[in-house]
This record gives sequence, structure tokens and C-alpha cells, in this order.
Amino acid sequence: MNHKYDAIIVGGGVMGGSIAYYLAKRGRKVLLLEKDQLASKSSGAAAGMLGAQAELEGDSPLFPLAKRSREMFPHLSKELKEVSGVDIEFINKGMFKVALSNEEKSALKNIMDIQRNAGEEAEWVSTEELLKVEPFLSKEIKGGMYIRKDGQVSAPQLSKAFFQSAAVLGAEIKEFTAVHSFIFEKKKAIGVETDDGNFYGENIIAANGAWSRHLLQKSGLELVVYPVKGECFFVKTDKPLLEKTIFSHGCYLVPKSGGRILVGATVKTHTFDRKVSLDGIATLMEKAKELLPVIAEAQWEKAWAGTRPQTGDGLPYIGEHPEYHGLFIATGHFRNGILLSPITGELTADLVERKIVPELDRFNLNRSLQPIVS
Amino acid sequence: MNHKYDAIIVGGGVMGGSIAYYLAKRGRKVLLLEKDQLASKSSGAAAGMLGAQAELEGDSPLFPLAKRSREMFPHLSKELKEVSGVDIEFINKGMFKVALSNEEKSALKNIMDIQRNAGEEAEWVSTEELLKVEPFLSKEIKGGMYIRKDGQVSAPQLSKAFFQSAAVLGAEIKEFTAVHSFIFEKKKAIGVETDDGNFYGENIIAANGAWSRHLLQKSGLELVVYPVKGECFFVKTDKPLLEKTIFSHGCYLVPKSGGRILVGATVKTHTFDRKVSLDGIATLMEKAKELLPVIAEAQWEKAWAGTRPQTGDGLPYIGEHPEYHGLFIATGHFRNGILLSPITGELTADLVERKIVPELDRFNLNRSLQPIVS
Amino acid sequence: MNHKYDAIIVGGGVMGGSIAYYLAKRGRKVLLLEKDQLASKSSGAAAGMLGAQAELEGDSPLFPLAKRSREMFPHLSKELKEVSGVDIEFINKGMFKVALSNEEKSALKNIMDIQRNAGEEAEWVSTEELLKVEPFLSKEIKGGMYIRKDGQVSAPQLSKAFFQSAAVLGAEIKEFTAVHSFIFEKKKAIGVETDDGNFYGENIIAANGAWSRHLLQKSGLELVVYPVKGECFFVKTDKPLLEKTIFSHGCYLVPKSGGRILVGATVKTHTFDRKVSLDGIATLMEKAKELLPVIAEAQWEKAWAGTRPQTGDGLPYIGEHPEYHGLFIATGHFRNGILLSPITGELTADLVERKIVPELDRFNLNRSLQPIVS
Amino acid sequence: MNHKYDAIIVGGGVMGGSIAYYLAKRGRKVLLLEKDQLASKSSGAAAGMLGAQAELEGDSPLFPLAKRSREMFPHLSKELKEVSGVDIEFINKGMFKVALSNEEKSALKNIMDIQRNAGEEAEWVSTEELLKVEPFLSKEIKGGMYIRKDGQVSAPQLSKAFFQSAAVLGAEIKEFTAVHSFIFEKKKAIGVETDDGNFYGENIIAANGAWSRHLLQKSGLELVVYPVKGECFFVKTDKPLLEKTIFSHGCYLVPKSGGRILVGATVKTHTFDRKVSLDGIATLMEKAKELLPVIAEAQWEKAWAGTRPQTGDGLPYIGEHPEYHGLFIATGHFRNGILLSPITGELTADLVERKIVPELDRFNLNRSLQPIVS
Repeated sequence: MNHKYDAIIVGGGVMGGSIAYYLAKRGRKVLLLEKDQLASKSSGAAAGMLGAQAELEGDSPLFPLAKRSREMFPHLSKELKEVSGVDIEFINKGMFKVALSNEEKSALKNIMDIQRNAGEEAEWVSTEELLKVEPFLSKEIKGGMYIRKDGQVSAPQLSKAFFQSAAVLGAEIKEFTAVHSFIFEKKKAIGVETDDGNFYGENIIAANGAWSRHLLQKSGLELVVYPVKGECFFVKTDKPLLEKTIFSHGCYLVPKSGGRILVGATVKTHTFDRKVSLDGIATLMEKAKELLPVIAEAQWEKAWAGTRPQTGDGLPYIGEHPEYHGLFIATGHFRNGILLSPITGELTADLVERKIVPELDRFNLNRSLQPIVS
Repeated sequence: MNHKYDAIIVGGGVMGGSIAYYLAKRGRKVLLLEKDQLASKSSGAAAGMLGAQAELEGDSPLFPLAKRSREMFPHLSKELKEVSGVDIEFINKGMFKVALSNEEKSALKNIMDIQRNAGEEAEWVSTEELLKVEPFLSKEIKGGMYIRKDGQVSAPQLSKAFFQSAAVLGAEIKEFTAVHSFIFEKKKAIGVETDDGNFYGENIIAANGAWSRHLLQKSGLELVVYPVKGECFFVKTDKPLLEKTIFSHGCYLVPKSGGRILVGATVKTHTFDRKVSLDGIATLMEKAKELLPVIAEAQWEKAWAGTRPQTGDGLPYIGEHPEYHGLFIATGHFRNGILLSPITGELTADLVERKIVPELDRFNLNRSLQPIVS
Repeated sequence: MNHKYDAIIVGGGVMGGSIAYYLAKRGRKVLLLEKDQLASKSSGAAAGMLGAQAELEGDSPLFPLAKRSREMFPHLSKELKEVSGVDIEFINKGMFKVALSNEEKSALKNIMDIQRNAGEEAEWVSTEELLKVEPFLSKEIKGGMYIRKDGQVSAPQLSKAFFQSAAVLGAEIKEFTAVHSFIFEKKKAIGVETDDGNFYGENIIAANGAWSRHLLQKSGLELVVYPVKGECFFVKTDKPLLEKTIFSHGCYLVPKSGGRILVGATVKTHTFDRKVSLDGIATLMEKAKELLPVIAEAQWEKAWAGTRPQTGDGLPYIGEHPEYHGLFIATGHFRNGILLSPITGELTADLVERKIVPELDRFNLNRSLQPIVS
Repeated sequence: MNHKYDAIIVGGGVMGGSIAYYLAKRGRKVLLLEKDQLASKSSGAAAGMLGAQAELEGDSPLFPLAKRSREMFPHLSKELKEVSGVDIEFINKGMFKVALSNEEKSALKNIMDIQRNAGEEAEWVSTEELLKVEPFLSKEIKGGMYIRKDGQVSAPQLSKAFFQSAAVLGAEIKEFTAVHSFIFEKKKAIGVETDDGNFYGENIIAANGAWSRHLLQKSGLELVVYPVKGECFFVKTDKPLLEKTIFSHGCYLVPKSGGRILVGATVKTHTFDRKVSLDGIATLMEKAKELLPVIAEAQWEKAWAGTRPQTGDGLPYIGEHPEYHGLFIATGHFRNGILLSPITGELTADLVERKIVPELDRFNLNRSLQPIVS
């Protein structure tokens, strides 16, 4: 039989793009299949925060991976720019995770202690100190945790940079090509069936986010992966209102280049629809004004929604299929897909090369065999 | 001297379009000049309500004109469709002007009495009766005035229909052509200077909304016309939430075809900018939810802003220049431009044909000679 | 078992919309499921020609159906407007199918004779007569066939009108809901599996165009249905250049309201991608200029592509599944989906009501049992 | 009298942005006024080539300025990114100016000799050598001149970076604010009249491109500046087709990040309209396919047009008004606005600081006193 590709990646989001990039960089012959347009669901919609410490508490099993991935960005940013010409708009100015009540303040200080005990940098700033750096923030904020290392990128640009770099390095990318099922031979995955015919490869990697559940059912694997809609919007001001990302309970404000602020994000579980609701926007606006009152005068640009893949226990699935050799899965990164994409790409490339990757043990597929109710 | 046109119209909004249409229909050779794109400022942004009774109280000098214009729509709608193929989406299902407090209720009932005494149809509906027709409205509404005759159209479609019909009937339309000044000869207007050279005509009609003030200053006329920004947005639902337009203090909900509801409009004076502000949207959303709670679940489509021309005394200027023969002005229709466009077009065409039009006396230009502070 | 719906329709294109409308009109409880947004693939992209005689020769088995469907439009247009407020922009001014060479002239005259013998209206017009009606057409055209009855509509508006009308009449519509497979019970279809759970109905109707092949494979039916990409573009002029639709080999020019001309369409088989290629546009431009030289000066608006479902023998599949009771199929209308949507909707509603519909015999599903190579 | 600003800049294109940036950097209090949106006419529409040698022959009086400006980009790129976070997408990979006929080949070689004699780097590459670097180019190309130093940027990003950086450094920017005339006092410009009231400043700089002619007429200065429309389009490919910019007679292909190629540009004099014509696109497509046949398969993205300011003798006007002190003009950069923006910004800032700038002598305003027929 004629194995055409070293690896066939199912899913054209940031995860598929990163895996394609790292495999192509290692000289592998890669085919990436996307049923619609690249980065059109979650990856192009994300806020691009690299919130290893802001999003995860110090004792999450995902924390070590998140930190390692975060550390990859400074170099990756240059590397992708060089290969593809695409600037991922990496900004390394830190984040304030702020408290709006004394309860939130205690909770945050607690998280901070855990992280500092784990050797992470984090620092409490009083309201006064906060306002010195970010003078437009509300005086009602009860201070916050300053996380120097949590930066940000442009999620659409990062996705584009991965795809373009992978293509430059020889990867083939086919949009509008839906994968219907895997082709197995003697407990080994050897290809995929698509609208555009069958494709064969030594390795198959399912990186299709919330859509992976249905596809993997056909392999007998019942992953607890479900879609979570998130709505966001952009406003613009003539002069920058913020230097750093502001992260609070239920709302974040991410300052982007050109005077834009990205405000996100709602959390609506179990729907694939990407419609923006009036109430989604209204709620975010309320919270944004609570944090940054002058945002009221900012210019409205646009709203959108994305579909993030969440899992039963809140941890991604990264590993080989428990029954079918050569079938790998990388999905379920929820709100941390942008942050985790480099490390997921690199380690999945290791898996494909049959390396032993103990840091992925915790994310293996076997835990799906005892389904957890979502 | 070679007079090329019977009439040169300055301004490609709905007013210019209507005047062009009525003149072309009467066989006049018309040139319409627009500095940007047609209907790109106020006319394409309007909600399209024909609120003769909802917007005007019974004793406004504009009331008779408004009613007459409103009556033109049923026939005009067919006429424009026939000539141009464009459907103006005329909907004739009436309007509820609702009260959210007992004070508003009294005030509204008062207006209703004035209108009924003036022979107009209007009827009070209780909360219960209101909810029978519009079951999704808030139960907190204290009833409202039912105005059977106040319909609506699509403002962009009406504008398009006027331009297209005028063009079919022979009018020339030039976009991206800024008029810098008028050309006068012995107290008569004989043409205009533009970026694209001079054009000559027997009659010149300034119908350029809030931009007319600056242009007319050059003719020694200091009109009190100023821009008023209005922000609006569109939401969409699978099933229609409203049958009739709902009009309240500071917010209206206009049901459009295809399940859309247009929510408008803020009032921000003395600015030409067409930026939508976060707070503009947030305020409208708040009011819309107060009227129609289920709108919270509707799908967000988009927001935009327009620039309405308001005058010192709140009445439009429609008439001949007090000093220069052959120079006509039609501007300052504020929130009633769509409603008043047919009658303004027809009567301005009468003026151009040197007919005596007593119903325009109240809107003549001489009142600008004693400027009123805005 | 709890059968919730009378009919579940899979596919939110014009065909699904029409079937939903006719079933809802008959009081049926309808659910329509669309995996993406309504009318986002082929139906929103179509030119909207009602080319019963222009597209089909007189001896096509589809001809009687096409004529009957064409005759439904004048009434349907009013009906849908009344129910939903949506104007389908039905234009009833006829079509010229023109010849650019003497060979084409002979062929066309031949077709005309067949149609006239079959009792259809058709008339040959010389170049001179043609130019009298359409003075901007090229003098190189060798005359053409005048088809008085082939009108046109706006395809996106027709789709919208069907959905909106169906919704007003009680149909439920769910976007972003992919159907993965049918649920069968003892040789009867009783429901569908979707991302959003299972839905149950007395009748299931697959109306999902080129995507129906894959879905129906799961029922053991190997339909020869495949996607054919078609690219189109819009230009705009101040004054209308055409009165009637111009149809020629490889290019048609459809005059729309507001001075627009729709130029279509390329034919690219076996691809689901909806990318517009430079060459697709360049080829259409060349042909359009050959027919209508002044189109060169028209204003460019935009280009797009749609995915039409073609079948092995060029005829649609409309009928019940040969093995599973209660599972109906309506797909494969290729370039005639807009034209055929009303009759397909009505007759499929008849099938669902277990009526005998002999005029559909020719389009039944059994012919798929002897697959025809496409 | 209360002079509020050190400098008021009229015009929110790349030239105004650059002047604002260099003045703000020197600590000046700057106000920039734009009648519409920033960079909405020419600056956002440009291809962004830095074609000092490709666009200008070695003996042009503009050549020294162009080269000096080109040399500013590597540093400027970093500086703007640091201040504003905006990446101007500076690409420094050189340009091929190619010949499609032997006549063009001779002419190009001649230009190359002049440039080399003037000490510029330029090198002839044969067809074979060309195809080694750019294998997708047509074999019919008769070789070309390789210009190592002619790079490119993103024109919209450069404009945005200037505005944003100027704002960060304290400049005020007002969009939607039309300047109607200058305010003079004893042969000195002291302010401007706008729709939004009067503004006063020590220096007034007219940098409003093709719109400057009309404004300056009011100061008695008859500049020969006129608009030249240029149409462009974008296509996209999965893998990059070009490494360097390809420049030929009547068409250039500029490879942008993310697999895009910008194809430009037509030259249509004396029109302010920004409509894209069918023929404009068709002509560019023809030429693009002649240079790069495989571009036929590229994906169409979009077309647009911009309005470049050309002057009577083809040289920009940069200098002080011959009669009014404190009134400066910087306009007429035609196709080289992006390239010349840094040097124009810097030297205009010098002029404003009353420095003597001999390198601008050739571009002074006095030459307008003997109008040249355009």
C-alpha cells in the first residue's frame, strides 16, 4: 500500500497549525485537512492571552505545560516571522488579575501564594499602585495580582503564521475538505475518508476541537468534549487606554495594537452556534465599564463568537488512541488553546515520532474510558 | 451662455433623491452631485419610520406636511417599484407609542387628545390590549397610543429607489463630486463649482443636510443647521417578535422584514463623526430590554451611525434663497427626513417651476435672518 | 415513543426552505436543521434565473416540472411577501438566449422549434430587433431566442422568504446543527442524530444538496450527487444597461434592482471549496464584455461562489428512500434549484402526506441503485 | 491671542501622519484634522512599495530624497513598533523590474546604467537567473533589473503606526473634521476654520493630497495638484508564489505576508471617485497573468481604489507658502507617498522649526506661480 503522507492532521485551527508546523520543521510530509476555512471557528476568535498564571491555578495539572508553552513564545514569535513574514503581535507587558470585591481579593491572594510557593513570579499591587500604571482603571478595584510573564498574541495572526510557515516548509493544506471517518487496518489508523476521496498516512492526528467528539465516536472512543461558545468584541480609541491586559472574574480587557481593546468573553456551554447575542454583548459591556469606566466613550468596532472545546474534567486530551495505533488526538484546550498551542504542537510531534513523552501522561486518552459527566 | 441643466441638486441623500425624482418625472433635465457615495450619511442610516403622529405633536407647524407626505407612500411605493424595480419595503401596520411611567402616560394621552381634536386617528390601548397584539412586550408598559397610519419603509431602499428611478427617467447622478461654491450672476444662481469643473443650470437646489450650512455661508446666508449624530443597531430573531413599531421616550423598535428589529437612536448634537460609541449601544440595549425583554436573546447583527440635520427652531428650511434667484434650499428635516422626503421633493419641484406654494411659507429662509440660538 | 415532529428537514437551503414552507402551510409541525447558516452555500449564491426554457431543452424529463414551477412564482411572490414581509424581487420581463456564432444560432433555433412544437412560447429575434430592446448589447450577436416567460428572482431573498414564512407558520429552524445520521426502527426512519442531541419525527427529508451523498451512504443508498462550484460577480451602473436577462453559452447577465448586473457562472465540478479564483472572474469578464461591451465601465462590487448539487444523469432525486419508509430525499437540482424550489416543496409535501405523485416517478431514488458514472 | 497648538496638520493620510509623528517626537503640541476617516483615501489603498529605484530614474530631482527616505525604513520600522505596537510589515528582499520586450529591456538597461553611474546598486539578471529565484514567473520575460534595496511595507499599517505613535507621544487627532479655510493675520497663518469651530496654531501644515488644491486656492495659491485614481486587488495562495516584488510596465506584483499578492495599479487621472471598474480589474488581471501565469489559480480576495495626488511637473510640493508665513504644504507625492513619507515628515518638521532645508528647494511652492498645464 502506498502511504502518501507521514502525518495527516484533521482540523485547521491553531492546534492543527502548530502540529503541522512542528512536524514540517522536522522534515515530515504533512497533509492538513480543514472542513471549512482555516481558523474560522475558535482560533480566529480567541483573545490571544497567554494567561498561564491568570487562567490556571498553581496546582492544576496543566500548569507546568502552560508555563513551558508560555516560555516558547518569545523565540517562536521571531521564528514564525522569519519563515512566513507573519507577525504574531506578541506583547510581553504582563497582566493584572484584579479583584472587584474583598472576597475576590482574598481568593486572588490565595492563588498568588500557591503560585509563589511553586516558584512563580507574582506580586500584589494595591489600588494606588495599579492606578499609577493604569490610570484609567476604576478606583473601585481592590488591587490585583501582577503577573509579569503572562503576555499575549494576536490569535488570528498566530494561526495564520503557523499555517503559512507549515506551508513554506512543505506541508499541504486543504480547506473545505471534511473528514468523515478514519480508515483502519488491523488496529492501525492508515488514512481518512473525505468528501474529496481517501488520503493515506502513517499517522493521523485529530485536532478538530469540539468537532472531535463525533469523529472519534466512529473509532469507539467516547471523549467528553463539548463546545463552549464565547462572545467578544473590539473597541478602539485614539490614544491607548491600557498598557497591560486586565483580567477579572467574567471579563478581560486585552489591549491590542492600533488602540484596540478586545473585551471578552462569555461562556455558553453545549452549543455550536456562533451567533452573538444582544445579552452577551450587554453583559460584557457592563463588566468592562465597571473595570474601565472611560471605555464607555470608545468606538465600537465589531462583535464575534468562537467555539471552544471543553472536556469533562477540564483537561485537554493529548495522546494516542487507546486501541488504534498511529491515531493521535489533541483537543479540549478550552480557553487556553492559544497559550498551549506551541507545546501541544511540539509534544504531539514527539508522539508521532514515537518518543516517550511523560509530561503528557496526565492528558492521555484512557481517562475517557470512564466517562465523566460534563 | 449655455445652461446645460434645468436643475442641479447638491446632495445625494434622500431629499436630493426625491427632488431629482419629482423633477425628472416632470421632464426636467436634472444633475445631482454628491461629494461621497449616495445615501452614505443620514439617509442610509435612518430607521425609516413614517412617524407623522409619533414624532410630531398635533400643533407642530410641520404636522400638516408630515401627514400629507405620509399619505403619499402607498402610491409612491408602487410607483418607484414600477420605475426602478426597487421595493422600498413599505409596511403599513401602525405604531404603538408607549408609556413607561404614569407621567409619560398622561403626556401621551394629552398629545393624543390634541391629535384627535385635529381630526387624526389615534386610540389608547391598555397594557392588556397591547400585550394581546404584542405579547412579547414588557408587562411594565403602562399602555400606549395606537397610531394606525404611522407606517415605515426601509430608508436605504427608499433612497436607492429615488436615485434609480430618477436615473431611469433621465437624471444624471455624479458621486464623489464635491460642490465648493455657487456661481452667481446678477443676483441669480447659475451654477456650481466642483472638483470636477463647473456645471451650469437654471436652478440650483441645496439639499445637503448638515453640510448645507457651510456651503450657504458662501451665499451670505447663515442658516442655523447643525449635525446630530444618531446611533442604531440591528438584531435578528428566527421568529418575528413584533408586529408593529414600538416608539418610546429615547428608544424605538422597528420590525423589519426577515426577522430583523432596528433599534434606535441616540441623539448627539454638533458632531459630524459617524463613530458608534460603546455607551451609545449600551444605552439603547438597556432601553430596548426594558420594552421588549426577550430581545436579550436576539442575535446581534451590526451597529452604525448617521448624521441628521437639525435647525435652530426645529423646522426644516424649504424655500428660495432670500437674495439669489434660482437658488433653493431643502434641509434640516432632522429625524423626519424619510417621512418628509416625498412632499419635500414634490413641493420643491413646484418651487423650481415657479409655482406658489403657500404651505411652505412657514419653512422659508427669511427666518434665518434672525438667527436662533441652537 | 414520543414523535415530536411531523417532519424533520435536513438542510437549510432553498429546497429545505420550500419544503418547510409548504408543510407548515398545511399545518404540519416542522423542524429544519442546518449545519451552518441558512442559505450559506448554494441558495444564497445563485443568480435566481427562472430559466425553464433557457436552461432546459424541450425534451428534458425535467421540462414539465420546470414549467409548472415557473408558473407558481407570480402568485408565490405575493404570498411570501404577505406572510413574511420579504420581497423575492420577482421580475417577469423575459430572457434573451443569444447566439454568438452561426453554429449557436442553428442550435438555438433547433431548440426553439422543439419547444414551440411542445406548445411553448418562444420567438426568434434578429440582431436588429435585439438591439432595439437592448441597445447596449454587442452588434456581433447573431440574434437570439426570446423567452417571454423565463423571469427571475433574488435567490437570497427567495430563500429568506421561505424560511421566514415557514417560521411565521410555526416551523422551528435550528442553524449550526449538523445531522450525523438517521435513526431507523424496523425499516422506518424515525429521527436524526445531531451534535445537539437526537430529534424524532414521523418523516425525515434530506434536502442537503451536495452534502446529501455522504449522509445517505449511511442508509445504504449510494446517490451519484456531487458538488459543482459556480463563481459569479456583481457590477453596478448608474443607469440600467439591460432590461431582460441575457443568456449565452457559458455566461449570463441578470439585471437586478438598483442598477446591478449579476454575471455568472463558472462550472467547476467535484469541489466543495467556495473560493473564487482569479481565472474564474477573468473568464466571466471576457464573456460579459463580448456580450455587453459597455459593462467594462461598470463598477465592480464583489465576487462569490456557490456549491450546486449535480447528479449522475443530470436529473434531481425527489422521492422516498427505496428501503426506509418515511425517509425522503430532494436534492440534485444543479443549476435549477431556485426555479424548481416551489414545485419540489409542494410535491415533497404531497409525498410526505402519502399522496401519489406520478410526476415525480422519473426522479425516484431507484435509479441510484444502478449507479451512473459521473 | 491664545495659540493652542504648535502645529495644526490638515489631512489624515500617511503624509500628515508622518509629520505629526516627527513633530510630536520633538515635543511639539500637534493637532491633526481629517475630514473623513484616517488613511481612507490614498494611504490605506497604496501597495507600499519602496521603489526609489524602480519608480524613479537616476536623474529625477526626487531621487536623492527617495533614497534617503528608503534608508530610514529599517530603523523606523523598529521605532514605530516600539512606540505603538504596530508592525509596518517592512520587507527588505528587493525588487525585480522586468522587461517583457526587447525594447523594454534596452530601456531598463539604460536606466540601470544611469543609476549605477550615480553610485546605486543595480544588477541585470537574465531570464534564467530570474527563474531560479522566482520559478513561477513567465519564461517570456526578457530578464530584469534587480534592485536589492527597494523593499516594501504595508501602507495601511504604516499609516496606522504613524497615527498611533503620534497619539502616544501626545498628538491630538480629530477625524470627521473638515477644514474649510485658513485663518490669516497680517500675512501669517494662525489657524483653521472647521465644521467643529476654529483651531489656532503657530504653524499650519496642509498635507491633504489631491484635496489641497481647492483649500489652497483660498490662500491665493493655485497649485497644479490633481487626483489620479489607482485600482488594485489582492489574491491569496496557500504557498507563496513570489519572494520579491515584480515591477513591470503597467503592473506590479507585491508579495505580502500570509500568501497574499497585491496586484496594482491602474492610472486614471482627474477623478476623485474611488469606484473600481470592471475594466480596471480585467486589465490588471491580464498583465498579472502575463508576468505570473499561475496567478490564474490564486484565490480572489478583493479590489479597491485610491486617490493619489499628482502635480503639474510630477514633483511634490514641500515648503512654506510664498506669501503666508507659518503655512506649510506637503502634497503631490503621487505614487511615491509611502516611500517619501518618512523624509517628508522629518524635513517638514525641520521647516516648522525654521531650519534651513536646502534639499527641499527643488520642491518649493514658488514654481506654482508659473502654472504648468497638467
